[in-house]
Amino acid sequence: MRILPLLPLLAGLLCVSAAQADQDQLVVNTAIDGPVLKFDWPALQIGIGSYEEGPTGLTIFRFRDRATAVVDVRGGAPGTVNTDLLRLGYPSRFVDAIVFSGGSAYGEEAITAAMTGLKDDGERSGAWTNIGLAAGAIIYDFQGHRLNEIYPDKRLAQAALHDLRAGVFPLQAQGAGRMAMQGGFFGCAAHSGQGGAFRQFGDTKVAAFVVINALGAVTDRDGRMVKCHRNPAWGDLTRTSDLLGRAIEQAVSPPAVGPSANTTISLVVTNRRMSPADLQRLAVEVHTSMARAIQPFSTYQDGDTLYAVSTQEVGEPTTRPSLMALDVAAAETMWDAILASVPDEPDASLPPEATVPPERLVGLAGQYRFGPHATLEVWVQDGKLMLRLSGERFFDLLPEPVVLHPTSATAFYVESRYHTRLAFTVDAGGHATGATVNPGRWAEYGKRLP
Amino acid sequence: MRILPLLPLLAGLLCVSAAQADQDQLVVNTAIDGPVLKFDWPALQIGIGSYEEGPTGLTIFRFRDRATAVVDVRGGAPGTVNTDLLRLGYPSRFVDAIVFSGGSAYGEEAITAAMTGLKDDGERSGAWTNIGLAAGAIIYDFQGHRLNEIYPDKRLAQAALHDLRAGVFPLQAQGAGRMAMQGGFFGCAAHSGQGGAFRQFGDTKVAAFVVINALGAVTDRDGRMVKCHRNPAWGDLTRTSDLLGRAIEQAVSPPAVGPSANTTISLVVTNRRMSPADLQRLAVEVHTSMARAIQPFSTYQDGDTLYAVSTQEVGEPTTRPSLMALDVAAAETMWDAILASVPDEPDASLPPEATVPPERLVGLAGQYRFGPHATLEVWVQDGKLMLRLSGERFFDLLPEPVVLHPTSATAFYVESRYHTRLAFTVDAGGHATGATVNPGRWAEYGKRLP
Amino acid sequence: MRILPLLPLLAGLLCVSAAQADQDQLVVNTAIDGPVLKFDWPALQIGIGSYEEGPTGLTIFRFRDRATAVVDVRGGAPGTVNTDLLRLGYPSRFVDAIVFSGGSAYGEEAITAAMTGLKDDGERSGAWTNIGLAAGAIIYDFQGHRLNEIYPDKRLAQAALHDLRAGVFPLQAQGAGRMAMQGGFFGCAAHSGQGGAFRQFGDTKVAAFVVINALGAVTDRDGRMVKCHRNPAWGDLTRTSDLLGRAIEQAVSPPAVGPSANTTISLVVTNRRMSPADLQRLAVEVHTSMARAIQPFSTYQDGDTLYAVSTQEVGEPTTRPSLMALDVAAAETMWDAILASVPDEPDASLPPEATVPPERLVGLAGQYRFGPHATLEVWVQDGKLMLRLSGERFFDLLPEPVVLHPTSATAFYVESRYHTRLAFTVDAGGHATGATVNPGRWAEYGKRLP
Amino acid sequence: MRILPLLPLLAGLLCVSAAQADQDQLVVNTAIDGPVLKFDWPALQIGIGSYEEGPTGLTIFRFRDRATAVVDVRGGAPGTVNTDLLRLGYPSRFVDAIVFSGGSAYGEEAITAAMTGLKDDGERSGAWTNIGLAAGAIIYDFQGHRLNEIYPDKRLAQAALHDLRAGVFPLQAQGAGRMAMQGGFFGCAAHSGQGGAFRQFGDTKVAAFVVINALGAVTDRDGRMVKCHRNPAWGDLTRTSDLLGRAIEQAVSPPAVGPSANTTISLVVTNRRMSPADLQRLAVEVHTSMARAIQPFSTYQDGDTLYAVSTQEVGEPTTRPSLMALDVAAAETMWDAILASVPDEPDASLPPEATVPPERLVGLAGQYRFGPHATLEVWVQDGKLMLRLSGERFFDLLPEPVVLHPTSATAFYVESRYHTRLAFTVDAGGHATGATVNPGRWAEYGKRLP
Repeated sequence: MRILPLLPLLAGLLCVSAAQADQDQLVVNTAIDGPVLKFDWPALQIGIGSYEEGPTGLTIFRFRDRATAVVDVRGGAPGTVNTDLLRLGYPSRFVDAIVFSGGSAYGEEAITAAMTGLKDDGERSGAWTNIGLAAGAIIYDFQGHRLNEIYPDKRLAQAALHDLRAGVFPLQAQGAGRMAMQGGFFGCAAHSGQGGAFRQFGDTKVAAFVVINALGAVTDRDGRMVKCHRNPAWGDLTRTSDLLGRAIEQAVSPPAVGPSANTTISLVVTNRRMSPADLQRLAVEVHTSMARAIQPFSTYQDGDTLYAVSTQEVGEPTTRPSLMALDVAAAETMWDAILASVPDEPDASLPPEATVPPERLVGLAGQYRFGPHATLEVWVQDGKLMLRLSGERFFDLLPEPVVLHPTSATAFYVESRYHTRLAFTVDAGGHATGATVNPGRWAEYGKRLP
Repeated sequence: MRILPLLPLLAGLLCVSAAQADQDQLVVNTAIDGPVLKFDWPALQIGIGSYEEGPTGLTIFRFRDRATAVVDVRGGAPGTVNTDLLRLGYPSRFVDAIVFSGGSAYGEEAITAAMTGLKDDGERSGAWTNIGLAAGAIIYDFQGHRLNEIYPDKRLAQAALHDLRAGVFPLQAQGAGRMAMQGGFFGCAAHSGQGGAFRQFGDTKVAAFVVINALGAVTDRDGRMVKCHRNPAWGDLTRTSDLLGRAIEQAVSPPAVGPSANTTISLVVTNRRMSPADLQRLAVEVHTSMARAIQPFSTYQDGDTLYAVSTQEVGEPTTRPSLMALDVAAAETMWDAILASVPDEPDASLPPEATVPPERLVGLAGQYRFGPHATLEVWVQDGKLMLRLSGERFFDLLPEPVVLHPTSATAFYVESRYHTRLAFTVDAGGHATGATVNPGRWAEYGKRLP
Repeated sequence: MRILPLLPLLAGLLCVSAAQADQDQLVVNTAIDGPVLKFDWPALQIGIGSYEEGPTGLTIFRFRDRATAVVDVRGGAPGTVNTDLLRLGYPSRFVDAIVFSGGSAYGEEAITAAMTGLKDDGERSGAWTNIGLAAGAIIYDFQGHRLNEIYPDKRLAQAALHDLRAGVFPLQAQGAGRMAMQGGFFGCAAHSGQGGAFRQFGDTKVAAFVVINALGAVTDRDGRMVKCHRNPAWGDLTRTSDLLGRAIEQAVSPPAVGPSANTTISLVVTNRRMSPADLQRLAVEVHTSMARAIQPFSTYQDGDTLYAVSTQEVGEPTTRPSLMALDVAAAETMWDAILASVPDEPDASLPPEATVPPERLVGLAGQYRFGPHATLEVWVQDGKLMLRLSGERFFDLLPEPVVLHPTSATAFYVESRYHTRLAFTVDAGGHATGATVNPGRWAEYGKRLP
Repeated sequence: MRILPLLPLLAGLLCVSAAQADQDQLVVNTAIDGPVLKFDWPALQIGIGSYEEGPTGLTIFRFRDRATAVVDVRGGAPGTVNTDLLRLGYPSRFVDAIVFSGGSAYGEEAITAAMTGLKDDGERSGAWTNIGLAAGAIIYDFQGHRLNEIYPDKRLAQAALHDLRAGVFPLQAQGAGRMAMQGGFFGCAAHSGQGGAFRQFGDTKVAAFVVINALGAVTDRDGRMVKCHRNPAWGDLTRTSDLLGRAIEQAVSPPAVGPSANTTISLVVTNRRMSPADLQRLAVEVHTSMARAIQPFSTYQDGDTLYAVSTQEVGEPTTRPSLMALDVAAAETMWDAILASVPDEPDASLPPEATVPPERLVGLAGQYRFGPHATLEVWVQDGKLMLRLSGERFFDLLPEPVVLHPTSATAFYVESRYHTRLAFTVDAGGHATGATVNPGRWAEYGKRLP
């Protein structure tokens, strides 16, 4: 079930239903729409799904012949399903899938849907030894991330389950990474995504997958912050550690802007035969190693959770690489995966400011509804278009009036750290029918209220 | 939404949809249909839901003003949602509901549905501090319990959420206890249910709730096994400890009959102000104490999970009773709750055997479908009606032929430990259109295949 | 090293050194002085040690060829060593010993001493794969148990390590159970001890050991409280559950008398080959089952800890009994062990009250030092001998004056629930040189201050 | 009790007693002999102790007015004491000390000694609310680190407890860091130590302490490996991540040289009032952050354990810095502490090779005993001095013969990666009486066998 997202159409079509929280009218998207990681591993199948009008999404990792799984939960705000069972140290392969989802706790519906989906499809049943079992975790992608409250649900998850692919992992702002952000500790408000990487040593395969919605900032192997709406006060500082030092010196809490809730959820998969105890050591070592690539990591505003999974396909105790080396390799693979999560779409650069006659601005004034709790009010004052957001601050949009600078008759931006952009759709008479915040990959669609 | 279950009607109406696993056609039942526990506590609201054609169901405990919750997982096969968050020791009240459900892992959909239901209703939202949060656990009620594979789902859970009641807890085979069993270790195959009890000391309230689907047998304060399809070989033995001793002496594993997967899930709620550490002590003490009332308890075939919750309404450190005494009182209240779970419906006693002419038996021969994986084959042989079950053994129904003894022209039973009964619905011509195993509270409905 | 305790001699000899906390002068006792459990199991060696002038002691369980061990900690006040390592699920046998000790946290020295003892003896070394490894737990046996503060130490532990026996477990008030008590929740102040039991099924052996220093009371399979200084107000009540119900009805906290800190520490050993996951299930099931035999159990004033150990000697997956049956058998064996812990020494019955001329009482007046923090003051008032305890209440001895009733010229008791007894040693001139509280198995020796 | 280590004297005096494992004759050293960190914090007192002839040592952190503590254990080989109690979430201050020690599991005696020491000194007692309580962890510093098997014991720990200092933390190869090493994964065999760092924000103090005995290598904020006996094959590679990549590419396990058992044990202390839940978040975040400064970290050959402690002295919920910022500051402080652990003693550079007449070499031939399990055999062959080690490989000393190159008549080295040095003490007749491996801070003393 691959449905190409027709975004312009969606804008008009769906904002109403979103406002009504009637998820049944949302358009399911399970297509790949961005870069991918490719690898050869038939036992591991991956599906994604998104509601583009959130946007929000989910990712399903299906183990064709089931797998042994363990979990390492380290964050201060985890949202998880079926982790207790994974802690009991059973060596048998009984896990069908790991599911990552947006939508905060509401997105946990996507995890249970993977189980019922397998049952409804007849792949699993009610027989004790044939229960479909999925575990998973979620990220928070509402306030600060977007203005509506759509969440990945059963329908979306089962569509993704019906469109699995082996050997292909969609990178960046796809699947569960569709609306992720990172760097909130530094006020980055940078869009993020899901990353993946794969290595093979002889017969031994290891893959790392991650959805980064971290309070911390993605950091490369030179210690540099990879992507951020930089604070002009930072000057030449580019090392994450320097920026951490600066923050500490000011002894300040993280900026109020940016998502106030975060989480990095991740998965390591290997085909190497491993006992649950060895798998747990792998989980702990890899999860800990991620503190190099995301700084700070595992804060109390992150619900960081890592699953480690073995398909138990190859290897004996003496197989090379040793488990010691494999654990280290997995940690480096995870760093690769984290770096691969960063969306490569360029930040939109702004065209020069345009001049728009006040009389043309008048048609844009009005109230625009973006979700059940967010409304933009737009009006003309002193020849300028002004904007005010009722609801939580969103990038530069505040409960206090801000000036909109025109770059065309229907396109505007806010002069500030994030250059938040606003575009209007107008009818033939020049009256706005809707508004889009930050047009592009992470656009938010609002419908003008009568 | 209270829909009286019209069982005879359901029999014909729904077995088809059940066989198709099309849960959307199942009839939602949120009505009380049995004994209840009553108590005065506005902050605690309870809802139940069942699909009678399973039968299977769920129970929602809603904390009107949120509550602080902890969890103690002790079983070898737990199915849980959001427990990791409860382990972090946060004192704030952020839990909206605890949900118990049948349907094994598939029933976890009922837990996530409580969260999305609160959001869809506008009671909770996507705002970070207003996320609807539920935790919960499930019981296994398929093989050995019933022949179909219906599970409590989102639709059923949200119906229960919309029909909450304060001060009333439905006992026995209702809600999540709708299709529970107990005593499998002893081959009891006794129907079980959900229990509740309440005590108040001054302003301090404590309530205990439990869904018993245990491998062990419910035991009273005199050490006697409360309910069982007894093994004739037991003679005069009635103490559970004597029967345990007998089983050990034979050094045998539990009988093959009876559910092979079990779980007791429970909840203690108090209005007393308690820190998470104190609440955890309460959880551990009460959970451990349950080994008196269910023997054996917390085996590796049980996924025993207990939640302890405080609504944080009353009490100071010096309030009486002391926390020490409160913990003990809660444990005794839980024993009361366990005893209150035992269904008081009398086991059907059999009428005397009837004589049915072989020519009338012919119309009953055929195949009857009970679910996706269970089919009964009925035929006449040597003047007797014979039965064979394709699928897992169910009470006395086996893959090998068993004789059906008539008690009327359409009612039969198997001469064995469980006296499994079978009733046929016939058309005007005396041809069977369907069959019911164990007519009554835990009936299973099968449709004759063409 | 077997040194018979010469109690009368010790009385005079050691109270001084005890008062000085100079443990080096204490007499080491590793002899058996009471009933024993016998069984055939060369791989399991047991040693005990006690300082009779505490009294306090320790018990070492040595696994001749090392063993696999797991732990289940459930109490609110545990004192443990090396448990983190046991939680990692390693299947290899690397545990040399489990050590139980009196002396609260100070007694943990006995656990580390087992490791250094093995090294000093050359059985273990500094080589990575040959590190001596012991785990263990302690009980609180100071205030409420005795008046001095002697603790089991390295010297005592290593003496016990050098006097190991296979197939013999000393029961009741020996080893780590030397100064244990139980029933404090009910004000029992009953002396307790260590218990053991053993069962064998074919080649499969299972042994249960326990040191009971519980807040709860030992309860038999008929639900009756086994041993207690009963409260006269209880009337005919003998079932523990009835006495719990009575306590709750009064909504009172446990009586102030009796030990304020408690713990039951236990060990299950089997020779059956088991994975760490299976061993953990055994631990959880047995530990939970103990709530039947000790009521209440695992309160926040108990540091309950159970170790489960496999010597990995016999058995395959299909060996009978099944692990399910073995777990249940172990739980019943533990109940046997708990019952075997109860000291069978009769409570001293009091001889009739004697008449002692006041002039003979005068020689007994004075101050008696029992430990660094406890002094008895004795004086004559209105022709009666009076007593006052500086320090924490001890049975009937209070900071307020109590009357001593004579049963001979040098023997007295307090008329109260516990019938606390006091005996004086006098010189030829009739002047007391020392005093003994509760002469007998749990005597406390005090020296008269000049 | 400050005893200056007289190393030359010790060489002759103590190697015999060490060989006999008679620790009572070892010289206690509690003096500071190296760089220190200074800070102002009366509530935190620190003591160190070492047996220089190991060398091995311990460090005690004493909280003058007790403190609240939590623990985060993440390694695959932890050795810990009293951690279970710290996991229960009790907010009260009841921890007297955290103790770190060398000596592997045998060194746990140092942790229990802190408790008994406080009791013996009368600072703590047997009273329930006054029990001395210490927790702690150990590092492995035998094989690969040194040739003898001396361990920190009760006598050493109590000497350190009697020589506490406020505001001074000895850095590098002192205390528990006396014989630590790091970088074994890369074959570094680099001596390591203990590090500390301190920051203050307004009234809020935070200190980080660490003993690094890691399999991984200490890494600075530029990603460079700080100290290592470099492998000549590495060429220009200096970034730890590059060396990790190289190791993975070769898919090799860590080199056989270097310690085969490792651990980083650490402590964060703050005076900020924090709940146990907040303290646990601090522990997790800081522990995870250490993966930046030690790479790889938390492998299954590390027993990494971090304690987080609050003295609960200052701060309200609104105090700046926020807990979020404080956690990040603590993590950066820990990185500082790790860097401060690296001994600044220069690696000994070798003088030019000397020429020694074979007849003078003859007097050096013989067998030298270094501990219970290590003996060096030295002989002359083809005019060169040869050496063979019975026991585990130690730097360049192997069971196979290696050539000793002279730099003087009594000083030699092995031409290899580690330039292992050997110096002989000779009598007037030119006959060796003893030998020292790697003279200097980490010297090992051996006595010639007759």
